[in-house]
Amino acid sequence: MVWNTNLRWRLPVTCLLLQVAMVVLFGVFVRYEADADAHWADNKAQHNTSDLENEFYYRYPSFQDVHVMIFVGFGFLMTFLQRYGYSSVGFNFLLAAFGIQWALLMQGWFHSYHEGYIHVGVENLINADFCVGSVCVAFGAILGKVSPVQLLIMTLFQVTLFSVNEYILLSLLEVKDAGGSMTIHTFGAYFGLTVTWILYRPGLHQSKERQKAVYHSDLFAMIGTLFLWMYWPSFNSAVSNHGDAQHRAAINTYCSLAACVLTSVALSSALHKKGKLDMVHIQNATLAGGVAVGTAAEMMLMPYGSLIVGFICGIVSTLGFVYLTPFLEARLRIQDTCGIHNLHGIPGIIGAIVGAVTASCATTDVYGINGLALAFGFDGFKTNWNASMQGKFQAAGLFVSLAMALVGGGIVGIILKLPVWGQPADENCFEDSVYWETPEEPKSTVLYPEDSTLKPAEP
Amino acid sequence: MVWNTNLRWRLPVTCLLLQVAMVVLFGVFVRYEADADAHWADNKAQHNTSDLENEFYYRYPSFQDVHVMIFVGFGFLMTFLQRYGYSSVGFNFLLAAFGIQWALLMQGWFHSYHEGYIHVGVENLINADFCVGSVCVAFGAILGKVSPVQLLIMTLFQVTLFSVNEYILLSLLEVKDAGGSMTIHTFGAYFGLTVTWILYRPGLHQSKERQKAVYHSDLFAMIGTLFLWMYWPSFNSAVSNHGDAQHRAAINTYCSLAACVLTSVALSSALHKKGKLDMVHIQNATLAGGVAVGTAAEMMLMPYGSLIVGFICGIVSTLGFVYLTPFLEARLRIQDTCGIHNLHGIPGIIGAIVGAVTASCATTDVYGINGLALAFGFDGFKTNWNASMQGKFQAAGLFVSLAMALVGGGIVGIILKLPVWGQPADENCFEDSVYWETPEEPKSTVLYPEDSTLKPAEP
Amino acid sequence: MVWNTNLRWRLPVTCLLLQVAMVVLFGVFVRYEADADAHWADNKAQHNTSDLENEFYYRYPSFQDVHVMIFVGFGFLMTFLQRYGYSSVGFNFLLAAFGIQWALLMQGWFHSYHEGYIHVGVENLINADFCVGSVCVAFGAILGKVSPVQLLIMTLFQVTLFSVNEYILLSLLEVKDAGGSMTIHTFGAYFGLTVTWILYRPGLHQSKERQKAVYHSDLFAMIGTLFLWMYWPSFNSAVSNHGDAQHRAAINTYCSLAACVLTSVALSSALHKKGKLDMVHIQNATLAGGVAVGTAAEMMLMPYGSLIVGFICGIVSTLGFVYLTPFLEARLRIQDTCGIHNLHGIPGIIGAIVGAVTASCATTDVYGINGLALAFGFDGFKTNWNASMQGKFQAAGLFVSLAMALVGGGIVGIILKLPVWGQPADENCFEDSVYWETPEEPKSTVLYPEDSTLKPAEP
Repeated sequence: MVWNTNLRWRLPVTCLLLQVAMVVLFGVFVRYEADADAHWADNKAQHNTSDLENEFYYRYPSFQDVHVMIFVGFGFLMTFLQRYGYSSVGFNFLLAAFGIQWALLMQGWFHSYHEGYIHVGVENLINADFCVGSVCVAFGAILGKVSPVQLLIMTLFQVTLFSVNEYILLSLLEVKDAGGSMTIHTFGAYFGLTVTWILYRPGLHQSKERQKAVYHSDLFAMIGTLFLWMYWPSFNSAVSNHGDAQHRAAINTYCSLAACVLTSVALSSALHKKGKLDMVHIQNATLAGGVAVGTAAEMMLMPYGSLIVGFICGIVSTLGFVYLTPFLEARLRIQDTCGIHNLHGIPGIIGAIVGAVTASCATTDVYGINGLALAFGFDGFKTNWNASMQGKFQAAGLFVSLAMALVGGGIVGIILKLPVWGQPADENCFEDSVYWETPEEPKSTVLYPEDSTLKPAEP
Repeated sequence: MVWNTNLRWRLPVTCLLLQVAMVVLFGVFVRYEADADAHWADNKAQHNTSDLENEFYYRYPSFQDVHVMIFVGFGFLMTFLQRYGYSSVGFNFLLAAFGIQWALLMQGWFHSYHEGYIHVGVENLINADFCVGSVCVAFGAILGKVSPVQLLIMTLFQVTLFSVNEYILLSLLEVKDAGGSMTIHTFGAYFGLTVTWILYRPGLHQSKERQKAVYHSDLFAMIGTLFLWMYWPSFNSAVSNHGDAQHRAAINTYCSLAACVLTSVALSSALHKKGKLDMVHIQNATLAGGVAVGTAAEMMLMPYGSLIVGFICGIVSTLGFVYLTPFLEARLRIQDTCGIHNLHGIPGIIGAIVGAVTASCATTDVYGINGLALAFGFDGFKTNWNASMQGKFQAAGLFVSLAMALVGGGIVGIILKLPVWGQPADENCFEDSVYWETPEEPKSTVLYPEDSTLKPAEP
Repeated sequence: MVWNTNLRWRLPVTCLLLQVAMVVLFGVFVRYEADADAHWADNKAQHNTSDLENEFYYRYPSFQDVHVMIFVGFGFLMTFLQRYGYSSVGFNFLLAAFGIQWALLMQGWFHSYHEGYIHVGVENLINADFCVGSVCVAFGAILGKVSPVQLLIMTLFQVTLFSVNEYILLSLLEVKDAGGSMTIHTFGAYFGLTVTWILYRPGLHQSKERQKAVYHSDLFAMIGTLFLWMYWPSFNSAVSNHGDAQHRAAINTYCSLAACVLTSVALSSALHKKGKLDMVHIQNATLAGGVAVGTAAEMMLMPYGSLIVGFICGIVSTLGFVYLTPFLEARLRIQDTCGIHNLHGIPGIIGAIVGAVTASCATTDVYGINGLALAFGFDGFKTNWNASMQGKFQAAGLFVSLAMALVGGGIVGIILKLPVWGQPADENCFEDSVYWETPEEPKSTVLYPEDSTLKPAEP
């Protein structure tokens, strides 16, 4: 099956159309939030607060950390493939740059729309990055097998669905999910897995050689892993309530991630016949602990609770890489390039469950009276809620996310299957030179495998 | 033309002399600002403010982001050359480490000098990093063709001229330029281009082979690109007014950069006959949007305004790489190694114009009464200014910056042309082993081209 | 001497045992600090403070910078070896992830234990990272010669001893050491050097080929260097007093590090017969300035004082790499893989002395009355102390740290010498493939030296 991979008009036209649409929609809808508008000087004079009370100072450092996770974290995490580094970093850059704009609009309409305008501030920037995070997750499943045009289209639809799902969870079900175990990770992972299931390529073994790492590509990937790992406490605390909730979310995430490293290493070694460690596990399973406290991190999960969650996730995730990924590929025809099912799928579900249980167990004893009301928003129309009810709604949120992911992923997968988006032939998957001008290699092909299999299809 | 590239005495003597001078000048002139002095405990007791009102908490996170941009951002951006990674990162490190000290002094004399001392605080550190940023820009034009001694001398002069220019713009013309479209980018770019024009090397084609990237060197460069791209909102907001101005500057820069990525990709693909992307464009043109909102980011540019600026700059910058850079080299004898004209030169001018127009259009309707006075400093001797007048002074600032850059670059270029600074011969340009102890390569020269052309000249 | 390097059961069992112990101990002892507990909402309502007064906002940005230094900084700094990148980054990741948990407990018992619980907050996270920093330092001395099991055991003991030493210094001797010149660097370095002295390998020359860098490995190491260098101001200021002390510590560290770069470059060039720079010096000696202001950075050291300290340390550290390291190896049988004696040992001692002298010279004239009391804690039982007494106790702290390091390192070295921990044979040192599943290299061995020397010993 040979497609035309020359994107000369398709990619530029797609990019320009989308960007023009963004300009127009931003012109019609987007304005600054009060804290970012020049009128703030007047407002402040009236309320006599300190400059520091500007939301900017509460959230900006976390925002920058999240920003690094999306662009360097996810981008470099996927550079482990020997000949797909440009695309991993570059396409991630492209889809995220588009996705954050579209997410500002979609999330804005749902959450920041009043008096005819979307009012954006630093919290919107963080949420837009979060939304794009779920697209980056899904990208991991189809990495190497799609064109940048397909990625832009997937981003367009996934951001839309993400925002709808997020609205259902956060605003209708009143679910707490500050670090996005459900909205970001579970949704993103099962969305991506459904897409890759529909895009199944029976002949993918033809580019198997390039699906492995080389020595330096694994080191580049570790840059991604470490920035994700280090900044995850910021990710899970970035949009939590001011004060103790942000503080606690950072501590819990720190603990969970630390425990996860030890059990990932333990399992990686135990599952190799000579006890050797596998870079794939170190790059990925060590992060599962961050995913799995995404919902509960801001709750009173307790440091030991976080350790237990991380402990379990390191084990489950590594087992997933060793046993589940090959099974999914062989039996269910799910080709999951980066193993997102092990890093985001299962840990995301675990995170949702941990969150539901933690919420169910909340008491005024543990939280204090104000603390409980504040943590779960038990006021307004939720005044008569109790913790157990919150727990049930949390669980409902998980099922909604899964349903949205599977249905949405199915539809988007079918759209992406159309043979007009410039996708690569099976034998050209995982190969930068299909879409990139690559440096001429010296004659010897020592570092990189033969490119003779590369047959760029012309119409 | 063979020069002696043995720097054994020239480099150590230059470094030590400069550093001794710094120690003496700091000893005579530099003290802590009130917020960083131990007497702050006494002052605070009198004024009864919170510890948080210390300037440190307003600016330190942004400072660290800017710091990363200067050292990792610029340093790694230039590692795209296959055999010049040590020098790109290492010389950038050296010149920046010297430059920030000299900038603390020069900028301090102009802006923080009272009672016989320069009083430094976190804002001075940011401004020193900014000043060095303009030297890093200029370094991009002459990358690979100069010795570290030349770079130190250029830094000495450029920081001096930068500070004079900055003083004229900010203090005499009362121009707003928080993100430095004029003072940093325009000035730095045209300064560097003038220097490289004077240092023109007709025989540079002899080291042409090394002017290309190899696969991994392009990935290293993407580390630089991404850290610049991600932290640019901090760059443009770091020294803005507290509160809404910092907040708004971050939002505008975020938007502009996102739009810029899509149009850069679009043009890169459209200009290649097979529609393939070029790493050079992705590494550089995607950043032009940050440069071009350097002046206006803190103003009420509006999110859609930022998108439009980014949109245009991605296109202009990519076109520049494809058509203008070869033209400049062939016709005007300007050898611009990194294409700084496309990333900092033109976008810097666009940024200055956008800033002038945005300032001209400022009204109390958009800014509020206090907001307008605060944003443009319309008080004190500027009480009777209006927006249109501010706009004209902004435009004047651009011409002053250009004039300073061209004249200053000319003089410094002539100084650097003297054949005593250890510059490399044409056939040894873009080669680390001239100035660095490099690892012995294995016999085969697969990864790196032949070094047989390397003839380190001995006196 | 051939050992069994198959870790299949030893590594997993060690990891799981340690992690289970952590879970149990955290369950029994660790709770949230008041600022991170949901009851904070109640407390705040009583005291009517702003949300911003939460300790989180004072320290979290610095915490994240320190976190990056430990995991990316130290991890990548050690990737300079051509075939030991996986282990450098991966083992550093493993030991740090365990170490921070154990440090939270150990330091918690000494400093945050009340009412039967350790109360952790963001400051504890920073201190745990600091503690692990000293283990990372020691790791530098034995890099390439030990198994991950040995590293975990060393971490267990070193964190314990670190906490005891820190308690003696900070709580019994009332020493000031915010950036850890004594507690982190001096202690870590001499501990590591003692361990490597005991683990002396006479046959290490058999893996000499792999002890060198290759071109790209040196660039990876520069990522580590730069993140350490850039974020060091956060390291030295992270746990200082609020306000001016944090502010001043950042400024001093910034100055010291800048000066250090110039003198390191000067000496590196001057000591090479053709004046070429050595990457080892640029990667390491440039950081010595940060180590050497670790104690005094928060004091009124003055910017010029910082420059002088950096100036001296760049020279001393580079001289150490050129002359002292070979001497230590040849005569004292101390094989110091990363040259930690030059980067952390000597500069740590210099830092302790600078701190003692600066403290001795403190006057109310320089600090103000409140400032002096605040800076050195001259209240409570220290009410009748004076600066000179503080200086003497500072000096005493240095000797205690050295003694603890030498004795502790000796004991731990002997434990690690037992031939049961899976350490590699002399000819397999500095080789990832002993403990890692590495990518099959193409037939030609261009990039990496012959692996024929690699004889993984089986029992």
